[in-house]
Amino acid sequence: MNVDDLRLRLSQAGQEHLLQFWDELDEAQQAELYAELHAMDFEELNVFFRKATEGFNLSSQQEKVDARMEPVPRGVLGSATRDQDQLQAWESEGLFQISQSKVAVLLLAGGQGTRLGVAYPKGMYDVGLPSHKTLFQIQAERILKLQQLAEERCGRPCTIPWYIMTSGRTMEPTQEFFARHAHFGLRRENVIFFQQGMLPAMSFDGKIILEDKNKVSMAPDGNGGLYRALAAQRLVEDMERRGVRSVHVYCVDNILVKVADPRFIGFCTQKGADCGAKVVEKTNPTEPVGVVCRVDGVFQVVEYSEISLATAQRRGPDGRLLFSAGNIANHFFTVPFLRDVVNVHEPQLRHHVAQKKVPCVDSQGRVVKPEKPNGIKMEKFVFDIFQFAKKFVVYEVLREDEFSPLKNADSQNGKDNPTTARHALMSLHHCWVLNAGGHFVDENGSRLPAIPRLKDANDVPIQCEISPLVSYGGEGLESHVAGREFHAPLIIDERGVHELVKNGL
Amino acid sequence: MNVDDLRLRLSQAGQEHLLQFWDELDEAQQAELYAELHAMDFEELNVFFRKATEGFNLSSQQEKVDARMEPVPRGVLGSATRDQDQLQAWESEGLFQISQSKVAVLLLAGGQGTRLGVAYPKGMYDVGLPSHKTLFQIQAERILKLQQLAEERCGRPCTIPWYIMTSGRTMEPTQEFFARHAHFGLRRENVIFFQQGMLPAMSFDGKIILEDKNKVSMAPDGNGGLYRALAAQRLVEDMERRGVRSVHVYCVDNILVKVADPRFIGFCTQKGADCGAKVVEKTNPTEPVGVVCRVDGVFQVVEYSEISLATAQRRGPDGRLLFSAGNIANHFFTVPFLRDVVNVHEPQLRHHVAQKKVPCVDSQGRVVKPEKPNGIKMEKFVFDIFQFAKKFVVYEVLREDEFSPLKNADSQNGKDNPTTARHALMSLHHCWVLNAGGHFVDENGSRLPAIPRLKDANDVPIQCEISPLVSYGGEGLESHVAGREFHAPLIIDERGVHELVKNGL
Repeated sequence: MNVDDLRLRLSQAGQEHLLQFWDELDEAQQAELYAELHAMDFEELNVFFRKATEGFNLSSQQEKVDARMEPVPRGVLGSATRDQDQLQAWESEGLFQISQSKVAVLLLAGGQGTRLGVAYPKGMYDVGLPSHKTLFQIQAERILKLQQLAEERCGRPCTIPWYIMTSGRTMEPTQEFFARHAHFGLRRENVIFFQQGMLPAMSFDGKIILEDKNKVSMAPDGNGGLYRALAAQRLVEDMERRGVRSVHVYCVDNILVKVADPRFIGFCTQKGADCGAKVVEKTNPTEPVGVVCRVDGVFQVVEYSEISLATAQRRGPDGRLLFSAGNIANHFFTVPFLRDVVNVHEPQLRHHVAQKKVPCVDSQGRVVKPEKPNGIKMEKFVFDIFQFAKKFVVYEVLREDEFSPLKNADSQNGKDNPTTARHALMSLHHCWVLNAGGHFVDENGSRLPAIPRLKDANDVPIQCEISPLVSYGGEGLESHVAGREFHAPLIIDERGVHELVKNGL
Repeated sequence: MNVDDLRLRLSQAGQEHLLQFWDELDEAQQAELYAELHAMDFEELNVFFRKATEGFNLSSQQEKVDARMEPVPRGVLGSATRDQDQLQAWESEGLFQISQSKVAVLLLAGGQGTRLGVAYPKGMYDVGLPSHKTLFQIQAERILKLQQLAEERCGRPCTIPWYIMTSGRTMEPTQEFFARHAHFGLRRENVIFFQQGMLPAMSFDGKIILEDKNKVSMAPDGNGGLYRALAAQRLVEDMERRGVRSVHVYCVDNILVKVADPRFIGFCTQKGADCGAKVVEKTNPTEPVGVVCRVDGVFQVVEYSEISLATAQRRGPDGRLLFSAGNIANHFFTVPFLRDVVNVHEPQLRHHVAQKKVPCVDSQGRVVKPEKPNGIKMEKFVFDIFQFAKKFVVYEVLREDEFSPLKNADSQNGKDNPTTARHALMSLHHCWVLNAGGHFVDENGSRLPAIPRLKDANDVPIQCEISPLVSYGGEGLESHVAGREFHAPLIIDERGVHELVKNGL
């Protein structure tokens, strides 16, 4: 440990307070703090802070974003409901791309399940499906199935590499979980783990905050930390080496996510886009979802907290909300675009500022939980780089088919929780069975209506779970279900069709 | 008591089993049962049963309703979002009709709060607003305000008579509640209570079911019992005597209901309609809501349980669901139409059959709770008479503005409960304040975004309640709020603007 050298660097950067409790620490604590500080680039952090706060102050002086917003033009919009005649062609194109091993998926899994109330990575969560599969397993099996579908369509084996971004706190348990489950049947070399960076919380005057005498308050640098992590770990080069041409980026928490969705890939590819966003229609003006739109002619996501009510309520002549392209963190990037972003554009972007109540130590070294915001976290967002796209497109899908995020614990009147995720998946699979010609019957053998009568608020949808290994998006179920009648709970998996008849019935 | 005569009538109607425990009853019990049976018209009940079961069997043989359904044509549709340029004119027409005392409202309040878990009528429920107003009070105050608005617009006093349909079990507590609250400021003679009929549950072979040795199993005859009750109590004549020309019929459980909505009244009136339905857009195919449509060329509501998934999923070229006119039990009838319905058409309609598990006594007189359906309830629905309209129209409004029903108790992951009702009302009133130029600020005085950041799933919307006595639909708030900043909870009522600052702040 060269403490003098560290002290000098700190003092040059105006961060010498970080060692203020040095003499009170025991040797182990000193080693810990030294290691943490030694690895930090204080000059760079000071630049980040300066640029981020400049941007923050600028944006509050700027003309409100409302006046500069324009909706997504129909010309760059593909829609699962309005362009039904093209879905087949897009799907074929996407499957072709996949069959050529030109498509990768990239999972943003750096967040911790704080709101969900678990101490392990969210992807390891079991929402309580009949199979008790975790989010990671569901996604892995969708990748396996898609590889198989592409192979069947095009007659050659293919690979969808899976890049998984973790953070300092989720890396180890994630890797260990995958290893324990033999990567869910995927080849180990095609599952690539990497780690996003962390940044310290800083006070309003730019001082790094200590959360304890020997510990800096650190947090992941936002899902836009993706780009810096790709650069640091030379992963764009890895993609190029594998011959990957485009990447589907998504978040871990959406139980319905169509990883490497061939329709989305095919749509973006046919449109010649370098960057695309999948969205769902925002139907209520005050729904807390960011919207994809153009601002000063450039595509971006405007967060819900930045929009005035009058703008959020604006409607077109068809009665729909003008700003209805709800961002669900499902993005398409070509690899050349990613390379430019990583090498050229993204390093220029300032961080966003989030004012937070950051637990810290006071001048006496006591741990304090502030009652008002006392500092900032610096974050980048994965969509910050939309502005650099040469050809940006938007693809609108149905919420009930593709989006049900897991954010909160089950609790009174909550949403986006394990129960809503589980119900969303089972409702979708129930529809798949009906659309493939199957039927559900009650305990007397009478056919149940397609939209079942719920007896009360706690009643559940018809329990039905179809393994991704059997069907990626509802296809291929006719041979299993057409003309047949089932009692719920129904499971269809690679071992066949199972009706989990309850005790005594 | 003439028991022999009763026994003869019963035996002629095939219902002699109703006296099977007669000799086991004490005198009081005998008197009770005698009174109940003496008042029944068994021949009529047998006719009801025969026609209802005929209809039930017929409908199961009939071609599925799907194939015969057509969506509401644009020509008969008015829309709060697509016809914004006409809203002003419709509102003026409606206010004019109201100012002439030509509009009445009719409340369907015969249901019991079984699912809500209370032993009193639902209208007496307090959903926990800052004011603790009940549903009845909210509706009464909207009527008062609307009378005032119409008077101001047209310069003459007017009356909106309020017809309130109760059932055998809700009549007394409802009347008592209104009396205790001095009819919430309405004139007593303009609040007209009446009672819907009850019908016995019947076994599948047409025998009236005893729920106890001395008691018939009775239930209200459905909200379509309205018409028989209007006839029995000669209320159409009462409307005519008052000069009422049209009636807005609605259910008690919708906290956002716009009673006698001038836009809806004005739209229906300008279209020359004798019958109209207010609807909200159904956006998810499997949402459990009935849809207004045409079947064999005639308007009706098709219940969600009657539709196949394929039909529910059909979409038009604009990507919207083809059958999207979600019924919210808000109807417009002219009085001449009601007179024809009551006198001519409705008596011809058969009851719907609902198979139920009806608690009953077995041959030994023991009370039994059946595990399978053992009988039927006969019901009519308020919308059964749409088919008789000469000119039927549909008016589409926004769910977040007008529809949040109270059906269930607060419970895990429930919907349509006191919390969702309370939040819906406060969210709407929050929007009213913003649209009138007010702002909300946090504890530091910083302005809150229009769409507030929710910290977690249990976070509540900004608490804001505006008395209907101050604003019926968001109008007239500028003088109270424009340019002002408020801390929530905010209440605006007839005594002024109140910020309920919490202890110690």
